[in-house]
Amino acid sequence: MDNLLRGLGAAFVGGSVGRTAHARKGAEARRMAPDTRVMLMRGGEPFVTNTEPVEPCWLGPEVWGLLPRAAPWVFLSGGEGAPATFAVEAGPRFDLASSPLEGLGVFRDLRGLLPVLTPHDAELIGLGKSMLEWHRTHGFCAQCGQPSKAVEGGWKRVCADCGREHFPRTDPVVIMLVTDGDHCLLGREARWPPGMHSCLAGFVEPGETLAQACAREVFEEVGVRVHAVRYVADQPWPFPHSLMVGMIAETTDRTLTIDPTEIEAARWFTRDEAAAVLAGTLPGVWSPPRHAIAHALLRYWVGGERG
Amino acid sequence: MDNLLRGLGAAFVGGSVGRTAHARKGAEARRMAPDTRVMLMRGGEPFVTNTEPVEPCWLGPEVWGLLPRAAPWVFLSGGEGAPATFAVEAGPRFDLASSPLEGLGVFRDLRGLLPVLTPHDAELIGLGKSMLEWHRTHGFCAQCGQPSKAVEGGWKRVCADCGREHFPRTDPVVIMLVTDGDHCLLGREARWPPGMHSCLAGFVEPGETLAQACAREVFEEVGVRVHAVRYVADQPWPFPHSLMVGMIAETTDRTLTIDPTEIEAARWFTRDEAAAVLAGTLPGVWSPPRHAIAHALLRYWVGGERG
Repeated sequence: MDNLLRGLGAAFVGGSVGRTAHARKGAEARRMAPDTRVMLMRGGEPFVTNTEPVEPCWLGPEVWGLLPRAAPWVFLSGGEGAPATFAVEAGPRFDLASSPLEGLGVFRDLRGLLPVLTPHDAELIGLGKSMLEWHRTHGFCAQCGQPSKAVEGGWKRVCADCGREHFPRTDPVVIMLVTDGDHCLLGREARWPPGMHSCLAGFVEPGETLAQACAREVFEEVGVRVHAVRYVADQPWPFPHSLMVGMIAETTDRTLTIDPTEIEAARWFTRDEAAAVLAGTLPGVWSPPRHAIAHALLRYWVGGERG
Repeated sequence: MDNLLRGLGAAFVGGSVGRTAHARKGAEARRMAPDTRVMLMRGGEPFVTNTEPVEPCWLGPEVWGLLPRAAPWVFLSGGEGAPATFAVEAGPRFDLASSPLEGLGVFRDLRGLLPVLTPHDAELIGLGKSMLEWHRTHGFCAQCGQPSKAVEGGWKRVCADCGREHFPRTDPVVIMLVTDGDHCLLGREARWPPGMHSCLAGFVEPGETLAQACAREVFEEVGVRVHAVRYVADQPWPFPHSLMVGMIAETTDRTLTIDPTEIEAARWFTRDEAAAVLAGTLPGVWSPPRHAIAHALLRYWVGGERG
């Protein structure tokens, strides 16, 4: 299924970001190296060209001079002999119009860029996005309330007061296609674009297995009991910092009791209808794009669970 | 494999804690109900009888009067019609010897209690342990540094200053049995009891899939490249708040290059030797007890991956 995910073009699953934990400790010294490349981001949006084809604007280390000294930055990649890449947060007050970068590019939402970014760029930028969001919301020690400081290329924060170490947070989320023989269930949240239907999903709670979280969420959202749950694949998802664990959950109960605080609607689709949803030929209903694991789960099931 | 885990007596996987998210909001009012039961904990250790057989001392709501007003407490279970259970932190300064509870019981390490607790008690107490640890280390808003306040039965904290909501943290961890045909790899950390060998394991990093985390950790710890990784089962593990995801990782490379900062030693075992390790009949080498997913992974593989 990992191969299926990659073959379908799912984002963030290529593993192309070299993990060089030991290089993080020396990252500070490499910020000013001439071959260092920097991805500037503002509120999670990467800086990209504003001409076609849209490409990420990787900048040189001169960008540091344009930013507040306290701007969070994160070492993304670059082992021995390879140039270092960093993501750096411009901050909400960064005024592109009055910056020397004006004219080079614009800040754009990452989701909308996924169809045009290379898998490698998407992985680097997605990693930067999730890490910078963590820094943005974790500037203080949760244990004592004093400011904490980023160290090791932004992969750790340490409290200067109580000494506690803080590590980036990854939230496990279950996302599941509920099936009953030749039918599958897709639902939609009110905040989604009109017509979009997807798998059900929810955060894993403390003390739960993945299968238990899956069964609980399905019951909470649509009132259906599932009797068998199996893991299929997983995908890091930097919105803001989740690990999506894709499951197939079987039921024999097709009676839906929707919880309107969770989802707006849900309905059963035959395998043929689901194939039409994927193809975009079922009027008024469409599925998430191939970048999302929900798409891959649906395609996997429509294809008879071969992957 | 879920059934195998339960059949082997793995802890925390029974799903016996009813998840009643809607009941959390009304939990405050139930703290003083006469049928409410309270698990008092100190630094993660539950309060249990000090006579054989050892059993958890579930206390009545009168326990609240013995504790500082700011003692963190967490709603564990209790939907409509069922008594509510809570876990409450006595705090490091709680002096059992001068308390009315003296003589009733003692605080004991949860790991050591797993062989004697019922699965249901272990799940409730494990959940309480992980949640109380989260409260202990998250009394302040990581975004702005001001004190945050527990709400909804302790399942959420809200910053009184900036309004940010904080939810309990669960860290995904991969734990993997590395195999090459009829051999498997077990290693040990220097801090473990002498002779104990187990699967390799490590935290999932931001931006990684489970399989990538598994491959990276194996390479970091023992220098071995794995070519196929598969999910087997998972287990919540409240030490302090992890989700252990059990995998089998295949390699064809048995040359070990140990990283001594990660592990102390690792060695290959034949299937027969691994069976002897499980049975406790291989001199000087023993495996984690049946409560841990590492035990189940090893047994699953020794038994030909049937479960």
